[in-house]
Amino acid sequence: MDGQALTPPRRPWTLRSVRPDARRSPGAGAPAAHPFSWLSHASAARARAGLTRRVTPRAATEHVLDLAGNDYLGLLRHPRVTEAAEAAIRRWGTGAGGSRLVTGDTELHHELERELADHLGTESALVFSSGYTANLAMVTALTAPFPQAGPAASAPLLVCDRHNHASLIDATRLARAAGARVALFEHADPVSAARALEGRADDRAARTLVVSDTVFSVDGDLTDLGALHRAARAAGGALLLDDAHGLGVIGPGGRGALSAAGLLPAPDDVVVSVTLSKALAAQGGAVAGPARVVRHLVETARTFIFDTGLAPASAAAALAALRVLRAEPERAEAVRAHARRLHDELSERGCEVTAPDAAVVSVTAPSPEAAVRWRAACLRAGVRVGCFRPPSVPDGRSRLRLTARATLTEAEVRRAVDVIVAHLPG
Amino acid sequence: MDGQALTPPRRPWTLRSVRPDARRSPGAGAPAAHPFSWLSHASAARARAGLTRRVTPRAATEHVLDLAGNDYLGLLRHPRVTEAAEAAIRRWGTGAGGSRLVTGDTELHHELERELADHLGTESALVFSSGYTANLAMVTALTAPFPQAGPAASAPLLVCDRHNHASLIDATRLARAAGARVALFEHADPVSAARALEGRADDRAARTLVVSDTVFSVDGDLTDLGALHRAARAAGGALLLDDAHGLGVIGPGGRGALSAAGLLPAPDDVVVSVTLSKALAAQGGAVAGPARVVRHLVETARTFIFDTGLAPASAAAALAALRVLRAEPERAEAVRAHARRLHDELSERGCEVTAPDAAVVSVTAPSPEAAVRWRAACLRAGVRVGCFRPPSVPDGRSRLRLTARATLTEAEVRRAVDVIVAHLPG
Ligand SMILES: Cc1ncc(COP(=O)(O)O)c(C=O)c1O
Ligand SMILES: Cc1ncc(COP(=O)(O)O)c(C=O)c1O
Repeated sequence: MDGQALTPPRRPWTLRSVRPDARRSPGAGAPAAHPFSWLSHASAARARAGLTRRVTPRAATEHVLDLAGNDYLGLLRHPRVTEAAEAAIRRWGTGAGGSRLVTGDTELHHELERELADHLGTESALVFSSGYTANLAMVTALTAPFPQAGPAASAPLLVCDRHNHASLIDATRLARAAGARVALFEHADPVSAARALEGRADDRAARTLVVSDTVFSVDGDLTDLGALHRAARAAGGALLLDDAHGLGVIGPGGRGALSAAGLLPAPDDVVVSVTLSKALAAQGGAVAGPARVVRHLVETARTFIFDTGLAPASAAAALAALRVLRAEPERAEAVRAHARRLHDELSERGCEVTAPDAAVVSVTAPSPEAAVRWRAACLRAGVRVGCFRPPSVPDGRSRLRLTARATLTEAEVRRAVDVIVAHLPG
Repeated sequence: MDGQALTPPRRPWTLRSVRPDARRSPGAGAPAAHPFSWLSHASAARARAGLTRRVTPRAATEHVLDLAGNDYLGLLRHPRVTEAAEAAIRRWGTGAGGSRLVTGDTELHHELERELADHLGTESALVFSSGYTANLAMVTALTAPFPQAGPAASAPLLVCDRHNHASLIDATRLARAAGARVALFEHADPVSAARALEGRADDRAARTLVVSDTVFSVDGDLTDLGALHRAARAAGGALLLDDAHGLGVIGPGGRGALSAAGLLPAPDDVVVSVTLSKALAAQGGAVAGPARVVRHLVETARTFIFDTGLAPASAAAALAALRVLRAEPERAEAVRAHARRLHDELSERGCEVTAPDAAVVSVTAPSPEAAVRWRAACLRAGVRVGCFRPPSVPDGRSRLRLTARATLTEAEVRRAVDVIVAHLPG
């Protein structure tokens, strides 16, 4: 869901401490701008570019067909999931009460971690308060300075897909601020990744980590994990993946991107993060991988140590959703079938649509303003779709973003297509 | 809760791409270390320093007196709070379903934001998935590059208390990576802050932000907000505060640090973050301040835009907890009274204890190992306390960390003191 470059836009300021105009009117009495007055200019500039964003609350009961959310398996209101969450509140209370290293750790968190690891085919898993904080932990803890490495060791190297999610990008920025080197490769291109890794076989003592989303959140495309894993391994490195949009949707039984790529049980040089807020209908995130990686995160990851544990209701909801998925693996297939159907019908009827590897289908819009108007027209016609504009798109192109859900009916898919096509911009 | 310096430890590596020993055994067939083998060395080094950490799940029913959690008002299992959370699950489902800018925004989030802003005396408020992500948003969005500032504008300047929480430190690191300048001042010392700001009156066009916790999480001390605000204002800057441990505990009616400092309604150059996971017995965080600041966060903060909205159960629990606090403001006074009582009795009986400004009381331990043993002995005797060691302490000193709770009884406070004193290390 992100395309902001890892390197922020070239800074529009210079590092001088005294500005010419300030110098002309010195003294304590000089009229000063309010420290937040610049916000109005920034907001006006966004408005001129058609990039204004507003939160618009929805009501609890509405008669809208939602193709914007990430509730891929349709479990947000499933009775087994809601009842498990309610029971957890009665049993554990409404919050974890503290960091999991202090008093916020419950048997419920561990139960969820065991079943997640089992489902994903990893040795171990660790739950976080969000997918965002899970990604920050995964990347920063595995690149943190490590004094025992000795003075001759090289800085860790992160080799990242250009279109990685915002949370992986922030994590990479933090890692670089702590001394890691960063190289970007072309989106979903393992050959480009291999090139960025070239020569690394001579530098095996440095930590090398290849970092990528599995299914990219904007266009819904799946990267070639097998090739990426081979490239990482050839360089003596490890592979860090974000399977936020793969878990519950791709692979046999919705076991996610590793299983879809035939990487099961997970190789011991692969770590994967997931979110509990999409297919698992809750909130939170997790990092799954070798037991020693998970132990390392417990002991060093700042967004684990210095953050309150996940709320029991969310942990219980995610666990119940995972059990529904395992009992009804056909839900994963249903999501993918609906996504393909949306793609086929929309492209037949003249839309420019990405071929979906998972639940996400992206439809090109001619401009940010047109995308906003298109989305609004669909909503007035009873269909909610997402609208992605810069800076939430990696390539600057605005689009509608549709998501399939296991519980859609054929009639609903048809209605969505009709509405979207009916309001196709000029 | 943090003392890791903003600047990471001096890097133990040099930036050379080929290591001498790798050079001695080149070729694709050279035996390479496993990419995660370094984790064992790192873990052994922590063990030698007495800094091992483990998660230890608690059971749902246990007969332990908890003085480790942050449930300051004792609301984690309050019927009005648990019932509100359960009702929210039935009404809204178990998750928000997406980013609040896509489909994750509900009337419930807005209701919570209105009441939080009202309670804190600010114009507006914005809810996040955690206090951690709220802090990342507050600092990074307000220092983000702003092209309209023109080529002559100076880089933003962050002036930060040395003991700020880990989440503020990570936020500051991200801001610096995007071009901001950073200056640290001595802990809780507004004179030092003013010194760091000196000369800024000539540089008013640059964005200057003074950043501090209100109540520091390790020692429970409150910084002098009035003086800090005057220093920021004299330099034409704004004040960003983290009131995670102030909300619900200090100020009349538990309205937090701004009200305790007589800064109510909040000045228009002050922004304050809070967490919903401590006094408000839930999960999540919020940033409160001028409406234009909140609008700016909606439009630009990465941990708002690229993160799933807070789970409805957590939003409802926090809202219900806030209402309990407003109906029973004496809860805030009770927490503070219990904390003072813990301090008085422990120090009378020979412990080295910090004087509490809020709910947190810190007791010095002679070493990390002694702190771990002390905590374990207390737990065996039925009293859970926190144990803080490097890197979670700003000054390297290990301690027990006790938290008062509104619902403690006199007898419980006495018992806690007896147990802690009985196991005082040598
Ligand atoms: C690819 C990807 N990774 C991580 C996240 C963050 O997960 P969460 O919303 O649980 O913080 C998201 C979306 O929210 C995402 O799309
Ligand atoms: C001072 C302070 N700020 C922020 C946070 C983070 O809040 P949360 O746990 O809600 O992410 C904490 C503790 O967790 C804290 O102690």
